[in-house]
Amino acid sequence: MGELSTLFAPERVAVVGASDEPGSVGYAVTNNLLETFEGAVLAVNPNRDNVLGLSCYDELGAVDDVDVAVVAVPAPVAVEVVRDAGELGIRNIVVITAGFSEAGSDGSRRERELKELAEEYELNLVGPNSLGIFSTGVGLNASFGPKHPVSGDVSFMSQSGAFITAVLDWAEQADLGFQHVVSLGNKAVLDEGDFVREWGEDAETEVILGYLEDVSDGQEFIRAAREVTAETPVVVVKSGRTAEGASAAASHTGAIAGTDEAYEAGLAQAGVIRVDSVQELFDFAAILSGQPLPEDNDVALVTNAGGPGVMMTDAVGDSTLSLADFADETLDALSEGLPDGANIYNPVDIIGDASAERFARTLDIVLADESVGMAVVLACPTATLSFDELAEETVRLQEKHGVPIAASLMGGASAESANDTLAAAGIPTYFDPDRAVRSLDALSRYKAISEREYVEPTEFDVDRDRAREIIESAVADGRQALGVESMELLSAYGISVPENEVVTDAEAAVEVAERIDGDVAMKIVSPDISHKSDIGGVEIGVPTEEVWDTYEDIIVRARNYQPDAAILGVQVQELVDVDTGTETIVGVNRDPQFGPLVMFGLGGIFVEIMEDTAFRVAPVTEPEAREMFTEIDSSPLLYGARGREPADVDALVDTIQRISQLVTDFPAITELDLNPVVALPDGAAAIDLHLTLDTEKL
Amino acid sequence: MGELSTLFAPERVAVVGASDEPGSVGYAVTNNLLETFEGAVLAVNPNRDNVLGLSCYDELGAVDDVDVAVVAVPAPVAVEVVRDAGELGIRNIVVITAGFSEAGSDGSRRERELKELAEEYELNLVGPNSLGIFSTGVGLNASFGPKHPVSGDVSFMSQSGAFITAVLDWAEQADLGFQHVVSLGNKAVLDEGDFVREWGEDAETEVILGYLEDVSDGQEFIRAAREVTAETPVVVVKSGRTAEGASAAASHTGAIAGTDEAYEAGLAQAGVIRVDSVQELFDFAAILSGQPLPEDNDVALVTNAGGPGVMMTDAVGDSTLSLADFADETLDALSEGLPDGANIYNPVDIIGDASAERFARTLDIVLADESVGMAVVLACPTATLSFDELAEETVRLQEKHGVPIAASLMGGASAESANDTLAAAGIPTYFDPDRAVRSLDALSRYKAISEREYVEPTEFDVDRDRAREIIESAVADGRQALGVESMELLSAYGISVPENEVVTDAEAAVEVAERIDGDVAMKIVSPDISHKSDIGGVEIGVPTEEVWDTYEDIIVRARNYQPDAAILGVQVQELVDVDTGTETIVGVNRDPQFGPLVMFGLGGIFVEIMEDTAFRVAPVTEPEAREMFTEIDSSPLLYGARGREPADVDALVDTIQRISQLVTDFPAITELDLNPVVALPDGAAAIDLHLTLDTEKL
Repeated sequence: MGELSTLFAPERVAVVGASDEPGSVGYAVTNNLLETFEGAVLAVNPNRDNVLGLSCYDELGAVDDVDVAVVAVPAPVAVEVVRDAGELGIRNIVVITAGFSEAGSDGSRRERELKELAEEYELNLVGPNSLGIFSTGVGLNASFGPKHPVSGDVSFMSQSGAFITAVLDWAEQADLGFQHVVSLGNKAVLDEGDFVREWGEDAETEVILGYLEDVSDGQEFIRAAREVTAETPVVVVKSGRTAEGASAAASHTGAIAGTDEAYEAGLAQAGVIRVDSVQELFDFAAILSGQPLPEDNDVALVTNAGGPGVMMTDAVGDSTLSLADFADETLDALSEGLPDGANIYNPVDIIGDASAERFARTLDIVLADESVGMAVVLACPTATLSFDELAEETVRLQEKHGVPIAASLMGGASAESANDTLAAAGIPTYFDPDRAVRSLDALSRYKAISEREYVEPTEFDVDRDRAREIIESAVADGRQALGVESMELLSAYGISVPENEVVTDAEAAVEVAERIDGDVAMKIVSPDISHKSDIGGVEIGVPTEEVWDTYEDIIVRARNYQPDAAILGVQVQELVDVDTGTETIVGVNRDPQFGPLVMFGLGGIFVEIMEDTAFRVAPVTEPEAREMFTEIDSSPLLYGARGREPADVDALVDTIQRISQLVTDFPAITELDLNPVVALPDGAAAIDLHLTLDTEKL
Repeated sequence: MGELSTLFAPERVAVVGASDEPGSVGYAVTNNLLETFEGAVLAVNPNRDNVLGLSCYDELGAVDDVDVAVVAVPAPVAVEVVRDAGELGIRNIVVITAGFSEAGSDGSRRERELKELAEEYELNLVGPNSLGIFSTGVGLNASFGPKHPVSGDVSFMSQSGAFITAVLDWAEQADLGFQHVVSLGNKAVLDEGDFVREWGEDAETEVILGYLEDVSDGQEFIRAAREVTAETPVVVVKSGRTAEGASAAASHTGAIAGTDEAYEAGLAQAGVIRVDSVQELFDFAAILSGQPLPEDNDVALVTNAGGPGVMMTDAVGDSTLSLADFADETLDALSEGLPDGANIYNPVDIIGDASAERFARTLDIVLADESVGMAVVLACPTATLSFDELAEETVRLQEKHGVPIAASLMGGASAESANDTLAAAGIPTYFDPDRAVRSLDALSRYKAISEREYVEPTEFDVDRDRAREIIESAVADGRQALGVESMELLSAYGISVPENEVVTDAEAAVEVAERIDGDVAMKIVSPDISHKSDIGGVEIGVPTEEVWDTYEDIIVRARNYQPDAAILGVQVQELVDVDTGTETIVGVNRDPQFGPLVMFGLGGIFVEIMEDTAFRVAPVTEPEAREMFTEIDSSPLLYGARGREPADVDALVDTIQRISQLVTDFPAITELDLNPVVALPDGAAAIDLHLTLDTEKL
């Protein structure tokens, strides 16, 4: 265990606000502790002499050696109790009391005080507004929930206390056991990142589960989870995925969560397996805690029923798994051992008159095949098959071969005891063959996560000082929205831009055009004019001899269109051969939880209409930038589809990383758009820039 | 009931091949019938005097008034038994015997004989290779399965007998009852279309379920299901969706199913709700049989738990449902009745200390709101809530308001009796809130299906004779692949094509160009050259004075490129203003089960790379053609996105329907591609044509 070891394995727990009044929170917490806790329970309540057979202490200071203080007194008093605890040197505190940030401005003030106290006294503080915590290793149930968890190797944190009570109620009959359970409450101090880190170091925790409505500190969570998921799988429901759900979440916890794109990207970068339903959360927990990781993702299916076998095969087709391609010896052995009418190819159909013995013989052959990384046993009830024998054989063969197995025994009462046998051995089993396959898929996906090698973000050699100068001078001019006049910002970060200059008279325009040598593009530069093309503010392919007149025309049109617009000049830019290139977009916005979120997509219709985009939380590593190309459907256009010359994807990968470095270096950049970045056969050039600054973050 | 009423409600059932040998099929069938059938069971077996207490008849001819003959004798004999039955005037036959088309060429021959006999004697023949049939109204279990179904209002057909045994085993404890169950077997005679039609006329059947691996006659199935689904919902798993699954299905039933695009389109046009998992099949059956249809698709969510409420709201966001927007009176009433901290807006959070009475009060208010079409009751276990009382109140209020409800009682054993109460009243209930929402979504989707008005396909006034001439003359020339030389085929069907002519000398080319008046497009015409642009076989925007030389150039290039290519000439075509238009593709291929399948998408990258396509089985009605535009992601480009002039979508809808009429009129057309059809602001023009003929179908 890590820094929170005492929180989860205390010897002495004090309940401040202990009560003998049934129905009260103080009663429930004390009672729960008395029922199962191995250590000492100490009741603190100045208004009682005795609570549930315990002598009451008047105050926390009267109790010696408190490892964990559970606070269940009204909110105004709770802050004082926490202060006392801090002064007494009690490090671990669970604040069950509600009435903090979820309850108006007084509550928010109190929550700020809690945070300050926690910082001052280095407190490990859970809550406030928490159901409590559970740790089955020492029988700790410091909660007011109605159920004790069964012991197991899953640790679970939840931003909803009610969800914990529901899960513990259901888990009793679902053969799911827990190591630690934490109701996160308002997460004033300890948050999901802390528990991921803690449980990652806990030898008793095999799987970490979470129900989250937001992530308090996205960057820290990514760091923590990225390390932990190399050894321990983390499966999370992040709710508020949809517009409707996000609005419901905001009214539930008061947290304004960022966009789902940020969560999707951030959780994936963190190595977290994200699920959308309660069923998948616990299906995945069961297989991740019960079965070994597969050697590879080729699955063998063995069934006594063709039709369900087809459904199961569809599930494989939907998954990231493949059907194993058996070796010749396997096929020979199957062919020898199976009757006419059987199908020896994967999915193996050992037909309706199969006994458990035929199942076992077939499984034994198939699991010995080196191409088989995992297997599903799928059985329909028949007169010749004993589910119980099949379950025993499956357990035996899983142990013999060490290959992960999931089962689907398609029966009701007739399958119950067999299902118990399988579950006891850690083999998950479902009526629905889909779920067996999806569970194996999760196992395989986690295998890949555990093997990821994290590459540090590339640190490019950039001119950070020059970038700072450009930003500061814009701010000094009172500008918060920067455009092409600040293209040098990109050059300072090594991002290729066509030769260009912003000029303020026609003569200078001609000089720049002559230097560029060839036709140029000219564009009005004004923070106040957003649709520059629409007002005739952009001219492409202007010959040098027309530059003077074009300059004047552009200025006149802009003045006519919007007399009060601030005009910074006209940009004269080297032409980029857009015809041989592909327009792409690199954008950034800043997510409240995860920080800078980098977007990539193909220009025009692809991003705007097809919504064909990929996101990563910055800093974006080189492999992460490269993955973005596999995520968008239109990327074949970059790889030379339809007779095009392939684009320089490396240059785009480089651009994405440099932008990531820029926005990481300058938190003042709240939004940034390079639209387009033209991907050429050799290189990539940023043609246009929009950038918004938050001057307070300079 | 319809034509099959005697099959499902016989008075006298004969078992041919009745046996008293345990483990044999003849034994199982006879025994099942004896256990539950209300009518007379007649055993036919020339080798026995008695079977299970029944006197045996030597042959079917010795038995009077047989309503249904169940055939369980070896395959070679089975054909003779069916012939006897036909001659004796027995109309209903269930052939359980295997060894037909699933078992090689002898079997296929026998199956053809069965079909011929069925046609000759007008037999209602189930199977062969069937598990049997069940009909709970008369206690009929004419199968060799191990379970009797419980009585209910769901009728179920399955192409997998094993799946039926699995479902009946599981259904016992899942409160799911059946009216009729049919194991379709090889579907030599009666197929899914027949049973859909039959059960659509059956007053006792509320929901029709199917597990299908193929559809024998797609067009007939669409017709049958389209009618039936106006009154009775049909929910189907069609397996073999994926490449992997299709291959497994082919090896299971021997059927080569068509593309999944055809099934997806055909089942949707038929009004069938397609599901991918066993769980959804039965979840949807439960709500469709248990709850009334909603007035509209706005859902109210009532919960005592914020977190699970957010998850449930996400599920609404994922569905076709919307969150109901409560009326002011509803909000006032909720506000009055609920404590501080409750959320009166949808999802309504009546918070953790809610009793069943508070749930009931809230539900009563919410269900009275006219904006509420349906509701979910979502409850986590707490000390203040009785699940049993909540269930009773929910049942009462559902009956009072007549609004469909689904429930999620998030508990294990503590929710069991409450779940039983809800299920008995037809209110589905799940631990997972997702499933409750998805079930209501199915109810809402079925509501829309039941209200569809089928519009007959438009019959355009076309020149069918001219089209026939063009096709026949191509065939007379030995051509099976037609190109632009046959553009008149399109004109004959009223599809707009630019003025064009195929010429075979330069002089004629010039004449055509002069007639067209303006620059023209010129294209080599050869069935043997597929990539015409790549060899310089296409020139766009040729001025009249260059037409002569261009003709010669095109011919020379084609001859150099492929000296042995048959060259039909050069097409000279009026130019279409591609810049103001949008390229689209209308294509057709012929599906083995559903017949002509029409595809629509935007040209180039959208179909080829983004796979942004919509499919419909022909004949395509006008509303169906119009729906195709809502299915593709790129359609905003047709509606004027990004400053484009909107395209004439009506003209495209017209083109799709005319193509549908063409391929319906001429089954010889096996493939057809109009690529591109240029959608213009006013009209649409087909620029290129490829078409393949199957001369045997002329």
